[in-house]
Amino acid sequence: MASDRIIMAHGGGGRMMDQLIEDVFLPAFGDPVGHERHDGARLDGSIIFTADAYVVRPLFFPGGSIGEIAVFGTANDLAMCGARPRWLSASFILEEGLPIETLRRVVDDMGRAAREAEVLIVTGDTKVVERGAADGLYVTTSGVGFVEFGARVGPALIGPGDTILISGPVGAHGVAVLSVREGIAFETEIESDAAPLWPTVEALLRAGVEVHCLRDLTRGGLAAAVNEIARARGVEIELTEAAIPVETPVRGACEFLGLDPFYVANEGCFIAIVKQSDAEKALLAMQRFDPRAAIIGITGEEGAARVSMQSAIGGRRALDHLAGDLLPRIC
Amino acid sequence: MASDRIIMAHGGGGRMMDQLIEDVFLPAFGDPVGHERHDGARLDGSIIFTADAYVVRPLFFPGGSIGEIAVFGTANDLAMCGARPRWLSASFILEEGLPIETLRRVVDDMGRAAREAEVLIVTGDTKVVERGAADGLYVTTSGVGFVEFGARVGPALIGPGDTILISGPVGAHGVAVLSVREGIAFETEIESDAAPLWPTVEALLRAGVEVHCLRDLTRGGLAAAVNEIARARGVEIELTEAAIPVETPVRGACEFLGLDPFYVANEGCFIAIVKQSDAEKALLAMQRFDPRAAIIGITGEEGAARVSMQSAIGGRRALDHLAGDLLPRIC
Repeated sequence: MASDRIIMAHGGGGRMMDQLIEDVFLPAFGDPVGHERHDGARLDGSIIFTADAYVVRPLFFPGGSIGEIAVFGTANDLAMCGARPRWLSASFILEEGLPIETLRRVVDDMGRAAREAEVLIVTGDTKVVERGAADGLYVTTSGVGFVEFGARVGPALIGPGDTILISGPVGAHGVAVLSVREGIAFETEIESDAAPLWPTVEALLRAGVEVHCLRDLTRGGLAAAVNEIARARGVEIELTEAAIPVETPVRGACEFLGLDPFYVANEGCFIAIVKQSDAEKALLAMQRFDPRAAIIGITGEEGAARVSMQSAIGGRRALDHLAGDLLPRIC
Repeated sequence: MASDRIIMAHGGGGRMMDQLIEDVFLPAFGDPVGHERHDGARLDGSIIFTADAYVVRPLFFPGGSIGEIAVFGTANDLAMCGARPRWLSASFILEEGLPIETLRRVVDDMGRAAREAEVLIVTGDTKVVERGAADGLYVTTSGVGFVEFGARVGPALIGPGDTILISGPVGAHGVAVLSVREGIAFETEIESDAAPLWPTVEALLRAGVEVHCLRDLTRGGLAAAVNEIARARGVEIELTEAAIPVETPVRGACEFLGLDPFYVANEGCFIAIVKQSDAEKALLAMQRFDPRAAIIGITGEEGAARVSMQSAIGGRRALDHLAGDLLPRIC
């Protein structure tokens, strides 16, 4: 490993984190459930189990809060495994001196988000650390759900010529967090897209779409998601740049901030990789939830684990996997 | 609430934490699974789900580390629900600058502890926060297991005249952590009792003991555990002080440090409340794992939610529930 200390990029969802998983976690924990670099683990039968820590800074931002994404994020990881989210745990690490009113706002957001996502928060824990030993509060949620409609999804199921769809526009969450963190006011306030994704997944499955893989576009954004999948399956992925929805204010803010929206984290957006002949059916199902859902690419032949993008002016470029993340502490 | 800010005692497992749960968490999350102040939640059928955050300082101490207790602690919470621990998640919050070698030691301890407890670590997450925004590392584990032998345990099942047994001596974990934190060397090195508890619980259930309630003696120690149970059930608990095992070096260290061993956290010790006629059978089963297991008390009539202790010299005193914990960041 290049460095012998943890750097911010180790938490960025990119190559540095992959390396940490391979060098430190997998040798110690093994690969007990046929780890596919998926969002959750399939246990006995149809039970899916997942967990995420949330350290977003600041705690509140346009369109959401750490509480909201701690619920939606973990519920969405279950949905990405084809599972209806059912139960969550919530474990808090609180910094001494945190106003109880701040905690209450976060917890109330979690309660509301749980009702919206139709999950129950059933267990949890609270620890307190000294002033200066945390940044207000961190929350870790884990989730349990059951696979429905006999869904079996994962990179291994992707075939050549599959269609790649996106559920909505990208980039809003990262821009919303960064704008408040940096104190930048854009002409149009950009709100996080934080939202539960199971309803859209359920619609796809209920419509009988042969879904091969699902992935939410969190840390590292669209680029990280497609690169992880390309590598996990050993397949080429070709995206069409002009087809990927990015709202005009988000595009403008990204230009201003020097960000590529395809690398910016989302909290309510996913890609579905489906059998080509089911693509139109999938698009119709997804557009019921967001008319901006779109077909954005296809999978190529096995062998070349890479992502290329057809640009709007006809050229083709690689969409690389970054070492870290453009934006630390975005979720 | 007396204070409008979080103080260390809110994480101590005592009255302050109870108040936070009642004032902040329950109003927002509700009480979806008939919350009994138990160590885990019972989901559909026989699935038990639990979660704990670990912030112990320092990360390594005689007889264990944050990694070991993060695995045993969560596995033990499942065992206390009568469930065989099966799967864990592990979510890390790492401080920028943490030596990767330190992380590797923690993770290796977790791997070893998981093999010892016969659980699989199947999912997880890693986040990194800036230097100064965490104290090296925090880890949150959650666990899933299945109730075995048709066990149904919880404070609600406790009856008058039940027998209370303890699985082994108390106080070692807290003293081990505090000794290294404060740089105190005792004549005999005192090691944490960190250990998996399911094997002892399984032996009780396999022996056909009618187990009514199980509780591990973590934050707040024996005193917090019995007080919580007394209150949850609305029953008096009477303990016999001389019957409660405390090893001589631990007793000496506690005297030196000004601690009451009954309030000190443990990581490998629990109480079992069983039907009186099964007490001898329960003691035999528990002594197979630790010959120091003992019968330490009985439950009284319903109504008075309090804990009293018969002292060695014949007097009787109340064993109160503390506001916080004697020792912050002990787990």
